[in-house]
Amino acid sequence: MSILIRNGYVVYGENLEVIKADVLIQGNRIVEVKKGINESADTVIDATGKVVSPGFVNLHTHSPMGLLRGLADDLPLMEWLEKHIWPREAKLTREHIKVGAYLGALEMIKTGTTTFLDMYFQMDAVAEATLEAGLRGYLSYGMIDLGDPERTEKELNEALREMKAIEGLNSDRVHFVFGPHAPYTCSLALLKEVRKLADEHGKLITIHVAETMAELGKIQERYGKSPVILLDEIGFLGSDVIIAHGVWLDSRDIQILARNGVTVAHNPGSNMKLASGVMPLQRLLNAGVNVGLGTDGSASNNNLDMVEEMKLAALLHKVHNLDPTVADAKTVFRMATLNGAKALRLNAGVIKPGYLADVVIFNFNQPHLRPINDVVSHIVYSANGNDVETTIVDGKILMLDREVLTLDEEKILQKVEEAIESLS
Amino acid sequence: MSILIRNGYVVYGENLEVIKADVLIQGNRIVEVKKGINESADTVIDATGKVVSPGFVNLHTHSPMGLLRGLADDLPLMEWLEKHIWPREAKLTREHIKVGAYLGALEMIKTGTTTFLDMYFQMDAVAEATLEAGLRGYLSYGMIDLGDPERTEKELNEALREMKAIEGLNSDRVHFVFGPHAPYTCSLALLKEVRKLADEHGKLITIHVAETMAELGKIQERYGKSPVILLDEIGFLGSDVIIAHGVWLDSRDIQILARNGVTVAHNPGSNMKLASGVMPLQRLLNAGVNVGLGTDGSASNNNLDMVEEMKLAALLHKVHNLDPTVADAKTVFRMATLNGAKALRLNAGVIKPGYLADVVIFNFNQPHLRPINDVVSHIVYSANGNDVETTIVDGKILMLDREVLTLDEEKILQKVEEAIESLS
Repeated sequence: MSILIRNGYVVYGENLEVIKADVLIQGNRIVEVKKGINESADTVIDATGKVVSPGFVNLHTHSPMGLLRGLADDLPLMEWLEKHIWPREAKLTREHIKVGAYLGALEMIKTGTTTFLDMYFQMDAVAEATLEAGLRGYLSYGMIDLGDPERTEKELNEALREMKAIEGLNSDRVHFVFGPHAPYTCSLALLKEVRKLADEHGKLITIHVAETMAELGKIQERYGKSPVILLDEIGFLGSDVIIAHGVWLDSRDIQILARNGVTVAHNPGSNMKLASGVMPLQRLLNAGVNVGLGTDGSASNNNLDMVEEMKLAALLHKVHNLDPTVADAKTVFRMATLNGAKALRLNAGVIKPGYLADVVIFNFNQPHLRPINDVVSHIVYSANGNDVETTIVDGKILMLDREVLTLDEEKILQKVEEAIESLS
Repeated sequence: MSILIRNGYVVYGENLEVIKADVLIQGNRIVEVKKGINESADTVIDATGKVVSPGFVNLHTHSPMGLLRGLADDLPLMEWLEKHIWPREAKLTREHIKVGAYLGALEMIKTGTTTFLDMYFQMDAVAEATLEAGLRGYLSYGMIDLGDPERTEKELNEALREMKAIEGLNSDRVHFVFGPHAPYTCSLALLKEVRKLADEHGKLITIHVAETMAELGKIQERYGKSPVILLDEIGFLGSDVIIAHGVWLDSRDIQILARNGVTVAHNPGSNMKLASGVMPLQRLLNAGVNVGLGTDGSASNNNLDMVEEMKLAALLHKVHNLDPTVADAKTVFRMATLNGAKALRLNAGVIKPGYLADVVIFNFNQPHLRPINDVVSHIVYSANGNDVETTIVDGKILMLDREVLTLDEEKILQKVEEAIESLS
């Protein structure tokens, strides 16, 4: 299988240089990027007036939560969770979650996300949907034991069951990740065991850390220290750990994250909507911490649009710091692409020969993306996910000219409405 | 001319109640909203699975600035203006501005804006483009005299010339508005004369006020008071005045705005991107001030998407106040529709019999807008302007199924690229 994308503006390399060039994909790799490639290919795509960009890496989401989109907004976090989200989640069957995963996959394909790091439950069902959709999924079962040793055991067993089921699918595109929910919902015993298992099985770990002030208070009360110091002291942190949110971090926390090579998945939309706070992006970047970007679940965003998320990130940090030069377009674009790929140890997020062929094409033949004064600026500040026209993952076309080729969109939307009816 | 929109979810009335109903438009009015309307119409639109919403009122923009989109980002305001925007604006001809106005009109039609309040120059050219596009335009010439009496005279004459030219077009859809740029760029003599002329001619006034801290400093230094107190003391304020931004307002300023019935046009995207600050939305609303929503120009946003702007407004104020209950979906939706219409003394922004037929249809048959748990929430938090499929203004269809009927999109995009080449 080969694909030749002709005559687009290409967002090239780590420096996001914009060049007019052709892009040749063979198998699952980008093999050549230059003007006038003189080779035949199984599929030729004319990208005149369009933009060829790395696909986006959503570094923190709960993809099946699209089912709960808009069910409860404008509420405090705990009221939202306790009265609206958790009661409905308790009713979710494996079938619901699979339908939710299909919905999430559709949304991601249609907005240019090619890889996502997920946390939910019944992740073997999410893995099946991800495989069928053609996306790359890093899938974690969200473990919560609330300090109950019986639950610790049960949660670890469920994680291992899902790990085996996902590994049994035998795919390069779906991977199991350990996902203890958060320091305030997991016992130290669970967290320590997860660290051991991750080492043993060579898996990544993702966990919510320092999302809200309330969490900080709880951890302070229970342990007399910050969540990051707590995790550091039990030897939990490492370059294979991706913490979601990281809103409430002080300078010492940031130094610890930097020293351990931890990645932070920033979720500006969710942090804004739930009023969690503003994460210290500038201080993290200055300390050399790798920061990726995520949408969080659709119940707190309320979509999975990484293109929109880039704009939210850029705008939030400018106004928060009263400094328009911070979180510039290229910085947030890298957060949404190569920084995420790096965290997942994935050779993607960059358009350059040798990288995985995870590529999207933006349709710039639209009034809000004209004139083409600055391609990266337009993607970050002017575009949204609907402007993605074609999505390629692992050298395979998942969407062409807005038509999803791997999933039956109409049928899934129908099943989604049925699923939500059975939940209410 | 009549239009029957069948079987959609209708965002009905001032309370934004969502009902399944048909909407009948006759001439330029909404005449009936109920289930199963049994009447023939010239055009019947099937809105099954779709949402019928009031069109959006962009209460502050500089529509031709789309030409300068993305030319300079991530810069401090004065550097951005002085090194990048003003030098290019100095080169703009009437022809450039008309092309820019067409581009802006296309963008607005394609993202569901039906009415806009504009400030730029050569507004008679903008008026012509607006008329052709089919939008409602409230068009102000941005006067700047920098305290030079000769310029005062010149600017007033230019405003009056544009007023006559626009009035000469004799349309219900385009209106002249007085637009002194700001208290720091206009002399008191100019401002007082504008107040007199507005009364004399029965015109609205729009002006930038309290956008940046730097502006506050300048006005304090020059006059020893805040911009709002200054304007109040010279008798400038009234219910026919729409101030743009209003970021830096103290309690006394807010009381003055409320007492005078002044409307504030909030521009969250621009205020965030230029790091101007966060306007005191809650305090303004609590004081009973009418607050509308605007995108500002595309050089500082960088688009004219009012749907995106609603989300920015909601999210910004939640995180700024660390309170997820503020700026709820219905509040910002009203800002973007009926509050704007009210400021312009326009009987629009609401779907209800008797109102002007300024109506848009969102395509909700898309993954990011499913399941349909909450229509208004989905428009504010999940949708973007590309989801608008059909745009109707004054009972006339400007866009049907994403195809703009009043303008030649391809030709305009071509002209836009030519225009920008001649500017660089």
